[in-house]
Amino acid sequence: MQHGLRLSANNLPRICLIPTFSAPPAPHDAATTPANQQDLREQGSVFMPRFDSHGLVTAVAVDRTSGRLLMLAHMNAEAIERTRETGHAHFWSRSRGRLWMKGESSGHVLRVVEIRVDCDQDALELIVDAAGPACHTMAQSCFYRRIAADGSLERVAGD
Amino acid sequence: MQHGLRLSANNLPRICLIPTFSAPPAPHDAATTPANQQDLREQGSVFMPRFDSHGLVTAVAVDRTSGRLLMLAHMNAEAIERTRETGHAHFWSRSRGRLWMKGESSGHVLRVVEIRVDCDQDALELIVDAAGPACHTMAQSCFYRRIAADGSLERVAGD
Repeated sequence: MQHGLRLSANNLPRICLIPTFSAPPAPHDAATTPANQQDLREQGSVFMPRFDSHGLVTAVAVDRTSGRLLMLAHMNAEAIERTRETGHAHFWSRSRGRLWMKGESSGHVLRVVEIRVDCDQDALELIVDAAGPACHTMAQSCFYRRIAADGSLERVAGD
Repeated sequence: MQHGLRLSANNLPRICLIPTFSAPPAPHDAATTPANQQDLREQGSVFMPRFDSHGLVTAVAVDRTSGRLLMLAHMNAEAIERTRETGHAHFWSRSRGRLWMKGESSGHVLRVVEIRVDCDQDALELIVDAAGPACHTMAQSCFYRRIAADGSLERVAGD
């Protein structure tokens, strides 16, 4: 594997997942105090996603070419692993209670070029190439409406 | 108010908030079946955010000029209202259990130019002009690290 290069979809690294609900640090261990843990998470180079009580982080997909926000969903540890292994975005469906690959039925997969993580590591940004409309409504982006001046929703131009 | 125009930060509309936990539809009322409700939410022109059991929707802020994803947070009905009233992004802090205006202490406010909503109305996209770094770490974006080929985190160039 090459270090420090932009990832290709077929070259996503294996990631060491360190869940937040791991064993608590031993008392008086300065290296693992909550403040220190926060510093590590915010400034460190270790990917240690901060899963919520349901074992999920929020993930947003952004189109590599247009920069447009495409969709927002959730990932558990397995979804992250599968995304890395396959190069295609996988999520955890909270409504269906199962792992799913975006586009598994429509063919409109999201090819993941890069994964970014936010400061406290409870959100991921997937930079993707989309094989078709990202939204199940067939819109290019799930965010196809904006709030108009009168408070109603109106379609975003071109979607 | 003008209809159908892109919103300015000082001209954000008042929004009729229809919580999902309102009274259930009467049986056999075709206009309010769950499927019909889903159609209304996905295709209609009424803003009816789908709050979770904590009364929250997810909100992501995107820079109007660069298109860059800046941060991800949560909003309750009051945060949405305050955002519209003031033109500055307000969120609900889950850790602190209170409403906060982004930049209330740092001055790095987010001026909201437009609000978009996703298909099932449980996520908002705020298109913003940022008065400074969006992240409390002083990075321009909270998503300042990416997963490198070796699985470690590396800083995104220019942030």
